[in-house]
Amino acid sequence: MRIGIIGGGAIGLFFSFELTKMGHDVTLYVRRKEQMLKLVKDGLSEKNHRAPIFLRTKLINELESHDILIICTKQHDIQEIISSITHLPYTTNVLFIQNGMGHVEWFDYLQMPIITGVIEYGVLKHSDTCYELTGEGKVKLAPVTITKNSLIEMIKSFHNESFKVEIEENWFRMLAEKLIINTVINPVTALFNVPNGAIVHNEYLLDISQSLCMEACEVLELPYTYMWERVQSIATKTSENISSMAKDVQLNRTTEIRGITGYIVQKANEPVPYTDFIYRCILAKEKESERRNEQ
Amino acid sequence: MRIGIIGGGAIGLFFSFELTKMGHDVTLYVRRKEQMLKLVKDGLSEKNHRAPIFLRTKLINELESHDILIICTKQHDIQEIISSITHLPYTTNVLFIQNGMGHVEWFDYLQMPIITGVIEYGVLKHSDTCYELTGEGKVKLAPVTITKNSLIEMIKSFHNESFKVEIEENWFRMLAEKLIINTVINPVTALFNVPNGAIVHNEYLLDISQSLCMEACEVLELPYTYMWERVQSIATKTSENISSMAKDVQLNRTTEIRGITGYIVQKANEPVPYTDFIYRCILAKEKESERRNEQ
Repeated sequence: MRIGIIGGGAIGLFFSFELTKMGHDVTLYVRRKEQMLKLVKDGLSEKNHRAPIFLRTKLINELESHDILIICTKQHDIQEIISSITHLPYTTNVLFIQNGMGHVEWFDYLQMPIITGVIEYGVLKHSDTCYELTGEGKVKLAPVTITKNSLIEMIKSFHNESFKVEIEENWFRMLAEKLIINTVINPVTALFNVPNGAIVHNEYLLDISQSLCMEACEVLELPYTYMWERVQSIATKTSENISSMAKDVQLNRTTEIRGITGYIVQKANEPVPYTDFIYRCILAKEKESERRNEQ
Repeated sequence: MRIGIIGGGAIGLFFSFELTKMGHDVTLYVRRKEQMLKLVKDGLSEKNHRAPIFLRTKLINELESHDILIICTKQHDIQEIISSITHLPYTTNVLFIQNGMGHVEWFDYLQMPIITGVIEYGVLKHSDTCYELTGEGKVKLAPVTITKNSLIEMIKSFHNESFKVEIEENWFRMLAEKLIINTVINPVTALFNVPNGAIVHNEYLLDISQSLCMEACEVLELPYTYMWERVQSIATKTSENISSMAKDVQLNRTTEIRGITGYIVQKANEPVPYTDFIYRCILAKEKESERRNEQ
């Protein structure tokens, strides 16, 4: 299959590596010329044990047509690429892999078959050409405007042992569940600069996390007991991992707080003081980073 | 006057230095033999420009009788010294200099004339024998069970240009105002590891601080507009200073959060979610420090 992957972050590199290995005709689109040149020169590698692979790499503004276009950028970078996508043939399947819910609003703007996905692998970017798989998991895909049968057909050529793909029926529910997990684990680990496991090891962080989980479940109308179990189980399984938001704060980068916690704050009809508070905490952290970067 | 000062922290050193300079007969009581020996050997100095002074230094369990005993320990260390104080003659005036309200409960246990004070100087401890004055201010004293006239008499021999002392009428109000200032500035600066000025410079920290101030004012029934002005004015004036709680967190020490924010949480009849949240945040920080200390 002719696959285009947009985004040279951890997820984009992971998808590019695995899908190229499977024999698909992959083009990876990145934003920075520097990263493109490095990928052309050194290839793309997974840190632990594999030799690099070489794949076609282009800049995002050179977007071509593909059977499927996989958007792996962060939530806050989608807006600027959405206009290039609207120019593609209506037969291009578009797969969104994002945290949060911010990309949902773009679904109405696109005429092509849309799929949305979440990934439960732990993936860490080490450099422009190297990522590391830090946790086993799977890729979950759900049909938005694509027919379920077309999606089933597509997955047949995607799935293998090191890249497990599964279909979910209800895309909103799938994103909502992932959002709640992110709403708890990401800002808490980012605010305290701790690995995921601290959420279950530190009784006060557990307590804070529980309050956040409860508020988010009320806003998204998901069952609290089930979700709180999932949050704890994921924090335990990925105990040593640094969440993407904690990483962003460490590196003084813009976080995904607006698309994650911001979504809950925005959708809430009742007060969500804990969510509201940690939302402002992460924004405050970003602001402090900006000040440090300026100095 | 024969003055005993308990506590070799920033405030204890500051009081010892100034009152000795004024010609009072001062004994400083410290907990650690190491600090005692250093003070005997090197004397006590203010960092910026003064030569060291030498004063009588003893360990806390060697407490003698004095005209006035000034307790400069932190809130959470009071309990263990209160029993030695009850053995002193009932003529000993006892002056409490603490943040928070935790010491108030001990007032009923003591038969002697009690005074309570707050300090608005910025004082930073550099070592066991050296402190630094980082901000101009004053010492405010209010009568609890001492007569106002006796307090007025006492202050005459305390006050001078580098140690400004003032009388306040209402001790509860005085402590409550200081508590509110500490409830906002201390945990916010400690959680984000920023100097006091960040509260007014970072719009999100300003926002968080405002919510905390509002909740605390409701609990203590103090006027919000007036208190919020004071908080901002102090954060501005002490812009470069590191709050004592931020310092404690930096050095992995137990903070005063229980006596400050914990007091508001405990006294609240209505929900105080923001105060509650930051309370648990600082406890979580302490817990992480413990884990680091153990490793």
